[in-house]
Amino acid sequence: MGIPIRICLVGAGRVANVHSNSLIHHVPEGKLVAVVDNNEKVLNRLADQYEIKNRYLSLEDALDEAEFEAVVITTPTFTHADLSIMAAKAGKHILLEKPMALDLKECDEIIAEAENGKVFLQLAFMRRFDPEFVSAAERIEAGEIGQPMMIKSLTHGPGLPPEWARDLSTSNGNLAEVNSHDWDCVRWLMGSNYKRVYVEVANFKGQSRGVETENYYDNSLVNIKFENGGLGSISAVCPCDYGYDARVEIVGEKGIMQIGELKGQAVTVGINRDQGLITPIFRTWPKRFEWAYIREMEHFINCIQRETQPKVSGEDGRWAVAGVLAGTKSFLEERPVYLDEVIKGTE
Amino acid sequence: MGIPIRICLVGAGRVANVHSNSLIHHVPEGKLVAVVDNNEKVLNRLADQYEIKNRYLSLEDALDEAEFEAVVITTPTFTHADLSIMAAKAGKHILLEKPMALDLKECDEIIAEAENGKVFLQLAFMRRFDPEFVSAAERIEAGEIGQPMMIKSLTHGPGLPPEWARDLSTSNGNLAEVNSHDWDCVRWLMGSNYKRVYVEVANFKGQSRGVETENYYDNSLVNIKFENGGLGSISAVCPCDYGYDARVEIVGEKGIMQIGELKGQAVTVGINRDQGLITPIFRTWPKRFEWAYIREMEHFINCIQRETQPKVSGEDGRWAVAGVLAGTKSFLEERPVYLDEVIKGTE
Amino acid sequence: MGIPIRICLVGAGRVANVHSNSLIHHVPEGKLVAVVDNNEKVLNRLADQYEIKNRYLSLEDALDEAEFEAVVITTPTFTHADLSIMAAKAGKHILLEKPMALDLKECDEIIAEAENGKVFLQLAFMRRFDPEFVSAAERIEAGEIGQPMMIKSLTHGPGLPPEWARDLSTSNGNLAEVNSHDWDCVRWLMGSNYKRVYVEVANFKGQSRGVETENYYDNSLVNIKFENGGLGSISAVCPCDYGYDARVEIVGEKGIMQIGELKGQAVTVGINRDQGLITPIFRTWPKRFEWAYIREMEHFINCIQRETQPKVSGEDGRWAVAGVLAGTKSFLEERPVYLDEVIKGTE
Amino acid sequence: MGIPIRICLVGAGRVANVHSNSLIHHVPEGKLVAVVDNNEKVLNRLADQYEIKNRYLSLEDALDEAEFEAVVITTPTFTHADLSIMAAKAGKHILLEKPMALDLKECDEIIAEAENGKVFLQLAFMRRFDPEFVSAAERIEAGEIGQPMMIKSLTHGPGLPPEWARDLSTSNGNLAEVNSHDWDCVRWLMGSNYKRVYVEVANFKGQSRGVETENYYDNSLVNIKFENGGLGSISAVCPCDYGYDARVEIVGEKGIMQIGELKGQAVTVGINRDQGLITPIFRTWPKRFEWAYIREMEHFINCIQRETQPKVSGEDGRWAVAGVLAGTKSFLEERPVYLDEVIKGTE
Repeated sequence: MGIPIRICLVGAGRVANVHSNSLIHHVPEGKLVAVVDNNEKVLNRLADQYEIKNRYLSLEDALDEAEFEAVVITTPTFTHADLSIMAAKAGKHILLEKPMALDLKECDEIIAEAENGKVFLQLAFMRRFDPEFVSAAERIEAGEIGQPMMIKSLTHGPGLPPEWARDLSTSNGNLAEVNSHDWDCVRWLMGSNYKRVYVEVANFKGQSRGVETENYYDNSLVNIKFENGGLGSISAVCPCDYGYDARVEIVGEKGIMQIGELKGQAVTVGINRDQGLITPIFRTWPKRFEWAYIREMEHFINCIQRETQPKVSGEDGRWAVAGVLAGTKSFLEERPVYLDEVIKGTE
Repeated sequence: MGIPIRICLVGAGRVANVHSNSLIHHVPEGKLVAVVDNNEKVLNRLADQYEIKNRYLSLEDALDEAEFEAVVITTPTFTHADLSIMAAKAGKHILLEKPMALDLKECDEIIAEAENGKVFLQLAFMRRFDPEFVSAAERIEAGEIGQPMMIKSLTHGPGLPPEWARDLSTSNGNLAEVNSHDWDCVRWLMGSNYKRVYVEVANFKGQSRGVETENYYDNSLVNIKFENGGLGSISAVCPCDYGYDARVEIVGEKGIMQIGELKGQAVTVGINRDQGLITPIFRTWPKRFEWAYIREMEHFINCIQRETQPKVSGEDGRWAVAGVLAGTKSFLEERPVYLDEVIKGTE
Repeated sequence: MGIPIRICLVGAGRVANVHSNSLIHHVPEGKLVAVVDNNEKVLNRLADQYEIKNRYLSLEDALDEAEFEAVVITTPTFTHADLSIMAAKAGKHILLEKPMALDLKECDEIIAEAENGKVFLQLAFMRRFDPEFVSAAERIEAGEIGQPMMIKSLTHGPGLPPEWARDLSTSNGNLAEVNSHDWDCVRWLMGSNYKRVYVEVANFKGQSRGVETENYYDNSLVNIKFENGGLGSISAVCPCDYGYDARVEIVGEKGIMQIGELKGQAVTVGINRDQGLITPIFRTWPKRFEWAYIREMEHFINCIQRETQPKVSGEDGRWAVAGVLAGTKSFLEERPVYLDEVIKGTE
Repeated sequence: MGIPIRICLVGAGRVANVHSNSLIHHVPEGKLVAVVDNNEKVLNRLADQYEIKNRYLSLEDALDEAEFEAVVITTPTFTHADLSIMAAKAGKHILLEKPMALDLKECDEIIAEAENGKVFLQLAFMRRFDPEFVSAAERIEAGEIGQPMMIKSLTHGPGLPPEWARDLSTSNGNLAEVNSHDWDCVRWLMGSNYKRVYVEVANFKGQSRGVETENYYDNSLVNIKFENGGLGSISAVCPCDYGYDARVEIVGEKGIMQIGELKGQAVTVGINRDQGLITPIFRTWPKRFEWAYIREMEHFINCIQRETQPKVSGEDGRWAVAGVLAGTKSFLEERPVYLDEVIKGTE
């Protein structure tokens, strides 16, 4: 056990609840000492649940009044840059939720300020810590399936995203809000950066759910050409209603690997021979990635304790954002978009 | 293609339908030329379906009037000895449905008459021809899981057996009517004969289904000690309502093997995250053992054509009956019963 | 049983062997009476195996000398149009292997001649007869998963295709030779035609396998926009080495459906706890689609007997070719291609 | 968060390591403050790993010198009674590993002393806290599969048990050391006590592993008749070598339920079409029951904090011991044994 690391949680919504649970119940070396949310009701609900006294309506207030070594930022995407930069300037280590930011300029600023402030910046790509993904990555690295040639990753989520996440003026839509983990995983497991992307989108449920936002889509299908010649596919269906579904399939020169499955629990029931067998599905992402969230937080805390660089960096977050930007440009302009097109402009 | 073998089907019930389908559609070298059933309605229904002209109310009549090389006997168990002996005396090869007979004396007579008549006698243990069971047996034989130590076989059937099959005065109950295949398989795959057996039975649904027969049971659990020291378990639940279920699990000195699964088809659907995934189950035994029935019939026809001994013999059928008799004695007398006890008396 | 239909098999290669097996062993109403192949060795090998006397080096010869009602055409794609047209003119019904032809003009000619000749033309999309696909299609039709929004279909084949099938000057590559079934299935199950397609390809194994053909690819990933707004994905990896793999996944407005699985047999073995469980994979397409090939042939024979239109038409074959042509144009020109672009030119 | 509960761990072997991990990393309200083991090397290894200062060679010493509210007893079975009684007399709450004790007299004494000492006694049947088992039990309770009629539970463990656990003079063999959880689970899920049991055992690997103990067995198969008429089966294979395997199957009046599976992780790989697919198996019980151990410890700590009775009692532990004693008597005397026979003598 090393020195306890004090954490201020910024944003008190759903993923904040998951991180709180990790800190309170499973990562004893991290101490959740303060919570920030500009919505007082949301703030108090989470702080009450986890019995946290220090509650603030802004990160400024928390920085002024509370003592902590690190922040966990879980607020909406459009706030990430400001909050991360503020934390970095104050010398606080940062665990930053995905998507990293709205554009590459923001990503660059976050990375630069974290370097200036000499703080660790870990992107919250928790799949990198999921026992299945970790094992899969190690086996790919060891050459078990040979050089990856084609990788497919999907994330289907049950419910309608919040309003700001559906609107291209305040977010980058499902490509970012649902697929950030997929963008990161395909790049990580392929071991190569995206060269160009092509995206098709569809809107099937928007009307019946009362979404009239321009360019709204609930289905998307990404085609990727990697720099190493490999091919990639990413899909999102959200809301998909049927459960939470995150799976990856990789074909290498020597074989195939499947990561994850639809089944959520090994309890199978048959009571009607016309219907067949029933097996639980994953209902939510916190359940699917239960261990991943715990291991991610342990890693963040341990990196701070041992002063080692986290294994998921700002650069990783920036690449996911670049993929999203190229993808959005692709479906808007109905053509394949090279990553150079979105990256060049920012340099 | 060899010389066509003409078949007379004796008994026109459910399994007769399965064998007719094999002969008519999948085993062109077998010609279904006559059908026998003492129930005229049942006889005509099957004969009409398969467009068979020669229809008889008794095997005697068929033997008198029709020309064929072999019989497939699918009538109730208590008729097997008489019909098999009659066929053997007439020089007809025999594919005999399980259970072979009601007692060992009948089995011995059938075997003796088949030898006398120089006809082939194949017991209809179709699991021996199922692609999964065949592959499993070959792999066990090749030593893949080492010497089998423990084997478990279950058969759960959806519906209430016919009245004669529920009554110990006209049948040997589920131990015979449902589990004959299991008795055969555990002995086949273990590579050893039963030494002693112990059986527990239960009656859960009899009352609600209006069964008042003495000693009726719908659940049974058999414990076997094999001559080679191995252990065996056989269970039957019938009626189980939920589908047709036949699976085997074997632990050998080097590993475990599972044969079969509950799932009946690789189509999985998820439409309700509170319910989960739905996958078809096997509804019936003809569906579960679709290829097994075809391959069994091909084998029978080919053995006649090539004049080679079928690989499932009267001896195999006799051992299954011996297990059933010891098992019935066991639950009636509430003690383990040695096979010697039931075999000795018959020699 | 209806009147037997006499069949002349044109082409005596691998898929011809599968169709012969269906006709000889499982579809008694179809009589395989003649075989054609311009390679005498290939011709005699198959004809010997199935004991067929009438052997011809050309369809002309067969038409001159043998009597039959129908042809099953299994020769390389570039011969399909000539052979189909010759058969149609001679009044023979046609079961035509996929891909239908090299271009839409050939498709149109085949369709026109079949109409002129008043013969049935069935495209050999056997997945339409696979029990899993049939059940899935019925359940989609019944609304179980709602309106399909996204469909993904993959076919990965173990071995290197023949030389003519790798070369864009004699075939349309894997998009046609490997994915024809996928093109048909996604259109069938989505219930809509393709509007535009975008394709990425990769060549990972060509060099090590000695393939130097221009534009050769062994990995391909297709992105489809359907006319109804739905999205589709088709992938091919061939040679994939690890087995034969054909699966479909569909997300509808109400839920998800998976058709097929990697597992080839329900026999599971565990003998090494560091390795885990081992389960057979499908090794070949004849094994994966064993029942599909039988049911496809039954359908063809029955349609001729009953004079009803086969449920897989020339139009279906033509759409698959159109998709392939748009896909090839897409990866060559590195842009999405509308179906109109390839269809318009042919009208 | 309630008041922290201080724990003294008695016994520092394998399962002690698992409980330490739960306490240190996942159950922050429990504080591991002292460890006892009479083997100094074993004691220091565990205490070093978890940085525990207070180390004692006996429970007496720990009681004299350290302050704590509860003990977790993980020593060999033959020490359970003495240690539990000592702890109870000192007013310490007890989490007691299975099997509870060697005989029913010891069980009765433990239960009586816990009552006298007004301390909570929780048996360490962690499967009662496994998410799959918990969900399964709730669904059975809710009537989903109807009244259970037949239940089968197996535990196969990879390695040879320690010497004392193989010898009927110092333990009750695999029936107790491997199957205690199964005895508890079948009774819990069936909702009825055992009425009589019959057991067959076998010794396949003893000789090759150098075990010459009298009555040693490595395979066992238990047949149970429950008081409610239901049937039960329990099997152990240990050492089984192939992995850790714990599964339950229950047939109720309305349907079937399977709990657990051989597969240990949802990562599937195919690299050889002659071999097939490879999927990890559970290698060890701590991995299989990872969450169960955490939830079990949380329950124990919470019961102490809230002063509520643990949901797994001494009575549950006593029933498992009674089943084991009847089972051992059964295979030694080669007859079914009524529970009354082993229970009566102790009253």
